[in-house]
Amino acid sequence: MKLVVLTGIPGSGSTTVLNKALEEVDYLHLNYGDIMTEIAVEKGLVENRDELRKLPAETQKEIQKDAGIRIKEKSETENVIVDTHCTISTPSGFLPGLPKWVLEGLNPDSFILIEAYPEEIAFRRSNDESRQRDAESAEEIQLHQEMNRAASMAYATLTGATVKIVYNHDDELDSTVAGLVEFLK
Amino acid sequence: MKLVVLTGIPGSGSTTVLNKALEEVDYLHLNYGDIMTEIAVEKGLVENRDELRKLPAETQKEIQKDAGIRIKEKSETENVIVDTHCTISTPSGFLPGLPKWVLEGLNPDSFILIEAYPEEIAFRRSNDESRQRDAESAEEIQLHQEMNRAASMAYATLTGATVKIVYNHDDELDSTVAGLVEFLK
Amino acid sequence: MKLVVLTGIPGSGSTTVLNKALEEVDYLHLNYGDIMTEIAVEKGLVENRDELRKLPAETQKEIQKDAGIRIKEKSETENVIVDTHCTISTPSGFLPGLPKWVLEGLNPDSFILIEAYPEEIAFRRSNDESRQRDAESAEEIQLHQEMNRAASMAYATLTGATVKIVYNHDDELDSTVAGLVEFLK
Repeated sequence: MKLVVLTGIPGSGSTTVLNKALEEVDYLHLNYGDIMTEIAVEKGLVENRDELRKLPAETQKEIQKDAGIRIKEKSETENVIVDTHCTISTPSGFLPGLPKWVLEGLNPDSFILIEAYPEEIAFRRSNDESRQRDAESAEEIQLHQEMNRAASMAYATLTGATVKIVYNHDDELDSTVAGLVEFLK
Repeated sequence: MKLVVLTGIPGSGSTTVLNKALEEVDYLHLNYGDIMTEIAVEKGLVENRDELRKLPAETQKEIQKDAGIRIKEKSETENVIVDTHCTISTPSGFLPGLPKWVLEGLNPDSFILIEAYPEEIAFRRSNDESRQRDAESAEEIQLHQEMNRAASMAYATLTGATVKIVYNHDDELDSTVAGLVEFLK
Repeated sequence: MKLVVLTGIPGSGSTTVLNKALEEVDYLHLNYGDIMTEIAVEKGLVENRDELRKLPAETQKEIQKDAGIRIKEKSETENVIVDTHCTISTPSGFLPGLPKWVLEGLNPDSFILIEAYPEEIAFRRSNDESRQRDAESAEEIQLHQEMNRAASMAYATLTGATVKIVYNHDDELDSTVAGLVEFLK
């Protein structure tokens, strides 16, 4: 059984790629934030996902850790793919999505980074009316992807997992999906 | 209370930026080497900072660790900003300024990397008569900044801290300082 | 006594550079895979190196860890240089050659990365009849070297070791070797 973590910055198309790949492979698809919400609701700490971020930082950390352990348990009986963020670009800087205490419980086999050229991502974002436009330039997008690569190798060093970069360039969705399916098989 | 680590390679202007920002925010400003010296003097190991590097490596490591713990303690009652090196460029290669045993005690909230274009840094260094000119080319400066980015994401993975890149380009000091002040507020 | 880890991707020329440098400095030269094989043979688990990769992953991990400890022991009485991979480019992605559990036992003083321009490496590989040609482009080679840099800084963060990049550009073998000799002295 495999446990794979899939990440991609907004505009990378990671959700689209993942959903298409899941039509062809048998994986349980989990979202990290969903599992955290599930745990926090069980503990009676919150009633919905929005309340999660209002919890004290230490409590969030505990839940984040427990979520890693729960996901790992699920992966013992079936293949699991988790989508989450490698790093989150916040006003305070790049926040690691998978810090040490998460990795210790989660202990995945592989990290997948869905990437595209910064210009492609900037253009996709500018066409996406459903999301607030922010002023992130191609330069900032490139920086974010570079920091994700560095973070992923730190994650790999702590876990022994592999890091796979999958390019999702414009007009190549079919071959991108085929590549991901091949990887997951 | 916040504990922030600020770094920048020689010529990045990190000291100038920090000093100007400190005119506008209420932070205790500590230098990592000063705290190490303070501890070593208290223990009767040295009489001044220059003697620090003559101590056995293991002793230096102990003091480096203790300094992290002391700085963390100070940050419990007031905001603290520490300036230090992300990595130090030595003849033996890039030496991490914040290895694991330091991070465990220090456990900061954020790392700030003050950066500029390699050409800007090379030019600033060539105009700085107070320091020995070394032959570091723009290519080597770029490598140093790249290695600092990678190191900072490893630091973030171990601590959960954010990593903020702040650009200090030529003729933009006021907006750079304003950005740092905004971050620290 | 020094313990140095030397790495370089296929086509970087790391083996050539190392062998020439070893003519001029007194170092015990070990290969990580050889030490792993030695240990697995002693334990009666395999008869030769090829069988190593057929062992269960957990057993391989144990042996990998034990090899780190054995190499460290050898470095107590003489200078040791180990050649191995920083990361291995596999179909599942970049696999860290020195994950946490290896670094804890090995605890080296320095990591050396032998690098060249991606185009140089691609050309050297295309001329090397002794090895299967693969389709890795200059872009993929650049990515591999970038991921190795990031991985090495994660390794350095866990150990406190330095990371030295040594360029082995075309027609500069003598000065590359001289640089490595200078480093090892």
